[in-house]
Amino acid sequence: MDERVREHAEVLVDWSARVEAGDDVVVSVAEDAHELGVAVAEALGERGANVTALYGSSEVSRAYLKGVEARVEGEADDDDAETGADAAVEADDFDADPEVERAMFEAADAYLRIGGGRNTTATADVGRKTRQAYAKARQGVREARMDTDWVSTVHPTRSLAQQAGMAYEEYRDFVYDAVLRDWESLAEEMAQMKEILDAGEEVRIVTERDGAPDTDVTMSIAGRTAVNSAASVAYDSHNLPSGEVFTAPYDTEGEAFFDVPMTIDATRVRNVHLVFEGGQVVDFAAEAGEDALADILDTDPGARRLGELGIGMNRGIDRFTDSILFDEKMGDTVHLAVGRAYDACLSEGESGNDSAVHVDMITDVSADSRMEVDGEVVQRNGTFRWEEGFEE
Amino acid sequence: MDERVREHAEVLVDWSARVEAGDDVVVSVAEDAHELGVAVAEALGERGANVTALYGSSEVSRAYLKGVEARVEGEADDDDAETGADAAVEADDFDADPEVERAMFEAADAYLRIGGGRNTTATADVGRKTRQAYAKARQGVREARMDTDWVSTVHPTRSLAQQAGMAYEEYRDFVYDAVLRDWESLAEEMAQMKEILDAGEEVRIVTERDGAPDTDVTMSIAGRTAVNSAASVAYDSHNLPSGEVFTAPYDTEGEAFFDVPMTIDATRVRNVHLVFEGGQVVDFAAEAGEDALADILDTDPGARRLGELGIGMNRGIDRFTDSILFDEKMGDTVHLAVGRAYDACLSEGESGNDSAVHVDMITDVSADSRMEVDGEVVQRNGTFRWEEGFEE
Repeated sequence: MDERVREHAEVLVDWSARVEAGDDVVVSVAEDAHELGVAVAEALGERGANVTALYGSSEVSRAYLKGVEARVEGEADDDDAETGADAAVEADDFDADPEVERAMFEAADAYLRIGGGRNTTATADVGRKTRQAYAKARQGVREARMDTDWVSTVHPTRSLAQQAGMAYEEYRDFVYDAVLRDWESLAEEMAQMKEILDAGEEVRIVTERDGAPDTDVTMSIAGRTAVNSAASVAYDSHNLPSGEVFTAPYDTEGEAFFDVPMTIDATRVRNVHLVFEGGQVVDFAAEAGEDALADILDTDPGARRLGELGIGMNRGIDRFTDSILFDEKMGDTVHLAVGRAYDACLSEGESGNDSAVHVDMITDVSADSRMEVDGEVVQRNGTFRWEEGFEE
Repeated sequence: MDERVREHAEVLVDWSARVEAGDDVVVSVAEDAHELGVAVAEALGERGANVTALYGSSEVSRAYLKGVEARVEGEADDDDAETGADAAVEADDFDADPEVERAMFEAADAYLRIGGGRNTTATADVGRKTRQAYAKARQGVREARMDTDWVSTVHPTRSLAQQAGMAYEEYRDFVYDAVLRDWESLAEEMAQMKEILDAGEEVRIVTERDGAPDTDVTMSIAGRTAVNSAASVAYDSHNLPSGEVFTAPYDTEGEAFFDVPMTIDATRVRNVHLVFEGGQVVDFAAEAGEDALADILDTDPGARRLGELGIGMNRGIDRFTDSILFDEKMGDTVHLAVGRAYDACLSEGESGNDSAVHVDMITDVSADSRMEVDGEVVQRNGTFRWEEGFEE
């Protein structure tokens, strides 16, 4: 076994999930994530934790949902003569929050999700309504899972390498550069950005393209708390890798341009342009995937407001790989998400922007850019104010 | 997908586990059993059941147990200077019945175990004491699991083909011949054998080799109830394939010879000879693996008494494959097990032979053999009394 797989397992168990002796840990292992699953199980045995391994197979999920679609379609055919009902799967075609999974996650101390399947589009032929209905019926299971010390990571697989447009060995190097960091020292650096955002009231982001303004957007962050997302539950951070500082903005005004390509619902989306007025998206465009973008923005009223401003600070990530787990953490990037805000950014009892979606969009700020907090430049051309080479 | 995989899934879900809409079904999928796991998930979606997939990986289990061994060894090293404690893993090195798994199985209606890993000796370097300690600490989890409608099957994999000494395609044909049967009609045939055993008081099995008596063993079955093991929970039968009728004998006398090779604890055992007096094994020999046999018989007092007499009646199984799931069900065979008796064979409140082990040993009865119940021949040279060609 590549020594880096063991190191990845140790970072996940010790730094990220803070597993202790006696903890009940549920580990979900994707089809091709076997090797990391094995290394994590060994680490958990060494720590004196208990392990329950789930099979996190997208192909199994797809088969189950296709089975449900076939059943609902069959029932609709039976009813057709009388009622003309159609075959779309609804949330009540599923049992709400099956007891087995609810009981399992309620009893669990930690949940480690190890992604890395054989095909990133394994559920492409499942209807979007079916997937939404399934998610809706299992809201309680999801909440019980989120109440654990959960962490999501991936094992580098060939299918993820392909999604990234990289060779397999090259992709493995990429993943371990992002994951095997000095997290303690990155957390200290990121604390400076958290401090600035916590104290700040307004953020302005400006980028230029061909010398003309491109993004010029302002948003309020007054009263909101930034998360120092240092890849550990101890920092309210649930991704490995992480390496971003994020908060929940509101009252957004201006225009934003997102030049990092991404995939929404199996559709490639490129060069998104959003126009905000009074906190809402009032106009939008995309050079590719505009329909997928429109679907997202039309989900519910909250889908047209921002849920997140995030500043990527993981310089171990040196390229975009069409995976949000990595892309949004990359150094020299800033991202905005339309949709749901994270509770961790709100004060006790406050409700932030609510939506069924949370879609991140990323801007490269490595050149011709600046971010201001209350009028003071804190990052210019990707360089933070505390870094060498920063130009006021 | 091979159509037989779908058929296997349907037999498992409908005939064996009797899954109904709304059931919570836990499915354990071994490393290379993915394809059958997918087919089972689709069938469960069609039936309106809920599915939770576990990763039944022997390599993950091995890694966890090696982690525990390393921890216990480390602790023993720390203590060594003072106490000289040794590193053997004990049951209390594990948490007793971790809540996650207990809660999960207590909430489950059915548990489907799909075996089929990449290496039948995947846990060979885990200490036997460690495995026993782990099993002992999880007795409550095991009982909760056995209280569901559980069924154990295997997906044909290359490692099982190798264990059987067969080519992969050849082995797939073998498995589906055993699994895809007319179970209803086999259940009817087996009911005749159950009727004979339920009414009978004494069974005698005689085989000859080179014209001289080889096995000549008698045992009491008075008061015991035979199980018509027709591969369905509706028949108290939890294996797919099955196809045996078994009961719980006692007061065994005589000698028995078992000519079907088997593997006990990763040791090949051949040509076992047992001598019974007063219901107990008083002498034993084996041409290979005698030490492994001795270990088994010395486990506890119950390990020297019989727990099972089984009559193989699945003629879809035409050869020995060194897998008890198949071997003991094969037509033209009889097996005896030392160790634990099954509750289903006992009357309410009666306790049968108790032991930590249950080890089946098989005799080929296709020629030069007879089985008598209360002095009447019910099977001669493999042919049952109700079959054509039976000689009284």
